[in-house]
Amino acid sequence: MSAKPGRTILASTISKIYDEEIQSKVTAMKSIRPQGPLLVGFLANNDPAAEMYARWTQKTSESLGIRYELRQFEDRDLLEENIIEANNDDSVDGIMIYFPVFGNAQDQYLQQVVDKNKDVEGLNFVYYQNLYHNVRYLDNKKLLKSILPCTPLAIVKILEYLKIYNPLLPDGNQMYGKKCVVINRSEIVGRPLAALLANDGAIVYSVDVNNIQKFTRGESLKLIKHQVEDLGDYSEDSLKDVCKDADVIITGVPSESYKFPTEYIRDGAICINFSSHKNFKEDVKTKASLYVPMTGKVTIAMLLRNMLRLVENREKLKSIQ
Amino acid sequence: MSAKPGRTILASTISKIYDEEIQSKVTAMKSIRPQGPLLVGFLANNDPAAEMYARWTQKTSESLGIRYELRQFEDRDLLEENIIEANNDDSVDGIMIYFPVFGNAQDQYLQQVVDKNKDVEGLNFVYYQNLYHNVRYLDNKKLLKSILPCTPLAIVKILEYLKIYNPLLPDGNQMYGKKCVVINRSEIVGRPLAALLANDGAIVYSVDVNNIQKFTRGESLKLIKHQVEDLGDYSEDSLKDVCKDADVIITGVPSESYKFPTEYIRDGAICINFSSHKNFKEDVKTKASLYVPMTGKVTIAMLLRNMLRLVENREKLKSIQ
Repeated sequence: MSAKPGRTILASTISKIYDEEIQSKVTAMKSIRPQGPLLVGFLANNDPAAEMYARWTQKTSESLGIRYELRQFEDRDLLEENIIEANNDDSVDGIMIYFPVFGNAQDQYLQQVVDKNKDVEGLNFVYYQNLYHNVRYLDNKKLLKSILPCTPLAIVKILEYLKIYNPLLPDGNQMYGKKCVVINRSEIVGRPLAALLANDGAIVYSVDVNNIQKFTRGESLKLIKHQVEDLGDYSEDSLKDVCKDADVIITGVPSESYKFPTEYIRDGAICINFSSHKNFKEDVKTKASLYVPMTGKVTIAMLLRNMLRLVENREKLKSIQ
Repeated sequence: MSAKPGRTILASTISKIYDEEIQSKVTAMKSIRPQGPLLVGFLANNDPAAEMYARWTQKTSESLGIRYELRQFEDRDLLEENIIEANNDDSVDGIMIYFPVFGNAQDQYLQQVVDKNKDVEGLNFVYYQNLYHNVRYLDNKKLLKSILPCTPLAIVKILEYLKIYNPLLPDGNQMYGKKCVVINRSEIVGRPLAALLANDGAIVYSVDVNNIQKFTRGESLKLIKHQVEDLGDYSEDSLKDVCKDADVIITGVPSESYKFPTEYIRDGAICINFSSHKNFKEDVKTKASLYVPMTGKVTIAMLLRNMLRLVENREKLKSIQ
């Protein structure tokens, strides 16, 4: 047996399977968007990770027939006005912001400035509320599908690809019996991800620096949405304890120095890292069966998919009214 | 000359002047709200300051013919469901939450769960966006007046009472020529307050632990809304510098130990503290001409006023539809 029995799965391998779907939708839209739909990215920081992400988004978009325009600003105070202009500009189909902009709560304000009908990242409050409440549509008639925040959605799609979501189980219960640990409880990714997985039937241990919480749908999936239980303060021992029979460990710690202890991973677990830093150690595959070191490219596929859904929703709305 | 020439103005003195207006509106509503409108407060912390604030709100409400109901929860995870229930309950006219609940970004999520038509504190994103953009109505026909976040609004009302807002100037320019320093740039109070004062014509120095920003409407009030300029990192010297000709110093530092240096106050300035801790020293009145040590009771008057406006808006909406 090799010292590193696990296998690395690249995000690019997974994102590729959405290329065809996206491309054929773009083609089907030719009558209403002859030049292809337009995605606009707003960048007002000098973060090299954000710039790289913008370049990837541009490259992927253009390869699939989607126009991409990066609008860069030296003065971050100009962003709000320019986003509002894009909100009101019929030629713009999707809008995304490269965060952090202000690096504080003002970023949450800015997030809500983006028109929810152009919010490809799915950061609008409405989308989060629908996610938490397991609501799949935007309207009562179930004509308009809701949008999911693109990073949590990307991780679900990765778990589907890795066969953790079991397609033999009914839709909405495909994570039944699975135990997941999510290290990060941000409002952007960690908490919605824990809720999403629990809403699909998993038991999720949500870990942050303060404490550990358990997200479930109750015994035998009695509930229609997740519930949350506090398991007490964070400690190395409590982390080790929740990891010992975890099927999946997902990390998103925004720190260069953080490394998840490989010895906490149970033999054969699945490890996924969505932080822009490598949260797992070099030897992760001595324990993990499948390891996804980065998720960005799947996230980009999801935001393009979200954009196409938003265009479809806007067209449906026009035909209803 | 006395060693303390300044005068203390109590919030209760200022809030009293709104009693009659509130009471007569409540009376005028007898046909649609025979028992008086109902305000519901949600409390899920053991913060004694929050409990005191809840008691004050109850007392003031009931003295003015408004019903008040405090809904207390041991388990903060129950709050969201119960707020949604109150959103959908026609007998509830106004909803407020005593923060902090989770003490992190989840509180910003919870803030948006409250139906904006019942959001007496004015914390919905729509109200903040209207404030920043100096938009006074919720609809294009200007039938429905927007709501202002209650603490920034309370401070404006205090400044009106103290004759800093000059009624001889046209509405919307009544702070022209005034310099203000605001020590706090939270998304809840400090930043919206700076914008509100700048939108009314003041030059505002917004100070937080990181830096100092200048909020203005441009030279000679050319603009319709404020603009923001970074003045560099925070330092004691830079704070001293912006205070030396400030007409008004407003503090909101959430810390027991923080004390604003009395020697930075120019002779005769107005000092207002909206923190629940005393941010000014005992000797503040050796420099300040007028000193408002707390603002909570004016904030309560504003939230009751907001609630009545929301009830009026809902009734107007019914008659339009």
